[in-house]
Amino acid sequence: MIGRLAIAGLGPGDAALITPEVTQALAEATDIVGYIPYVRRVPDRPGLNRHETDNREELDRARHALALAADGRRVVVVSSGDPGVFAMAAAVFEAVEKGPAVWRDLDIHVLPGITAMLAAAARAGAPLGHDFCAINLSDNLKPWALIETRLRLAVEADFAIALYNPRSTARPEGFGLALALLRTTCAPSRVIIFARAVSTPEERLRVVRLADAAPDMADMQTVVLIGSSATRIIDRSGAPFVYTPRSAP
Amino acid sequence: MIGRLAIAGLGPGDAALITPEVTQALAEATDIVGYIPYVRRVPDRPGLNRHETDNREELDRARHALALAADGRRVVVVSSGDPGVFAMAAAVFEAVEKGPAVWRDLDIHVLPGITAMLAAAARAGAPLGHDFCAINLSDNLKPWALIETRLRLAVEADFAIALYNPRSTARPEGFGLALALLRTTCAPSRVIIFARAVSTPEERLRVVRLADAAPDMADMQTVVLIGSSATRIIDRSGAPFVYTPRSAP
Repeated sequence: MIGRLAIAGLGPGDAALITPEVTQALAEATDIVGYIPYVRRVPDRPGLNRHETDNREELDRARHALALAADGRRVVVVSSGDPGVFAMAAAVFEAVEKGPAVWRDLDIHVLPGITAMLAAAARAGAPLGHDFCAINLSDNLKPWALIETRLRLAVEADFAIALYNPRSTARPEGFGLALALLRTTCAPSRVIIFARAVSTPEERLRVVRLADAAPDMADMQTVVLIGSSATRIIDRSGAPFVYTPRSAP
Repeated sequence: MIGRLAIAGLGPGDAALITPEVTQALAEATDIVGYIPYVRRVPDRPGLNRHETDNREELDRARHALALAADGRRVVVVSSGDPGVFAMAAAVFEAVEKGPAVWRDLDIHVLPGITAMLAAAARAGAPLGHDFCAINLSDNLKPWALIETRLRLAVEADFAIALYNPRSTARPEGFGLALALLRTTCAPSRVIIFARAVSTPEERLRVVRLADAAPDMADMQTVVLIGSSATRIIDRSGAPFVYTPRSAP
């Protein structure tokens, strides 16, 4: 029997943001593979094998999942957010390319999910309503100089910018360096949104101007959205709305 | 009674990609507002008012929805994909900012959805598995020169690039110009994915190299994904997998 491998996005946290497609794949799985807190979001049931692994072992985890699928099992690799955005899908395909030929012919599907920047943007209004980019600030897998180059070019292009993993364990000072770079190229009034653990009980949303942004406003569970030069704040009695107009001059 | 306005993402087409949060909002709505084909994706029921509008009237549509909410109704504005990505959310907040003060205090929520580029990426593998950007090629609301500048800078940053609305009605030649620009700056082997109507019966996915890409491979229902310089194709017996490695040199 040929096994199956689905790489599924659990969204940002709230079960109401998990697609029915993912829910069905989880219900049909024999094996769930993933980083500990994501595997624990899947309800246990008889006959389900849950394989919890540490965060730093993405390629090993991918190989383990592929070996299980090649063995005829119905495997779901779980990611938070969307598996294709700084998550497990790229690791699985890297393992496929480097692995035994038989892995290429497995039934492998990626099941999309609500990624952190879009959940965060939705909470704030529409800060990514015009052209935008997504940059992973973690330099585990790329040199810091490349991150700086991309940030500079993204500002020059006047994209709104989503920063994932602003506080990497390996380089906690990364986000501070990014803020310093932004201060040399953007107006102090540039809008910045710190969106922490959106849709979970620990959610916190903070809208500030670049002049008031500080490195410790971001932690490992935060995605940071930097507005384009056109991004606007609408003040009101509750939390402000933030949006980037659809039109550009 | 204070009304409510939700701006909801219906995802790319398949009902299995609509979040439970959106399904619930649709079930509780008194009024659905949106572009004709999106409104028609919402099942009719007694007591539900469906307001279908043409595609070119986003700001009018937003004002209409806000006026209904201010009148105490439970309104859902529907977008395909994610409402915050080149869709209705930015138009609603623009209307709020320019409209009567009372609109600012309405209960307005954006309900995220699976946006076209992430559905397309999931079908192909993990082409957006590293840093990436999203550019709307429609120049209805911005000058073409700005689009070219952003494309150039995105290539220089070596982002993977998602192009929305590659064939705008106003300027059908836009995507051909974009391809010509890419040919001056990228290797002929650069990977390009044409993803049409993903998750619908009309879905078609095509993976080519830049050398073989042609303007008529994209239409109004296509999102185009351009790999970074590192994006790889894994050949196999079925459709190839495409992924962008997590690490950069």
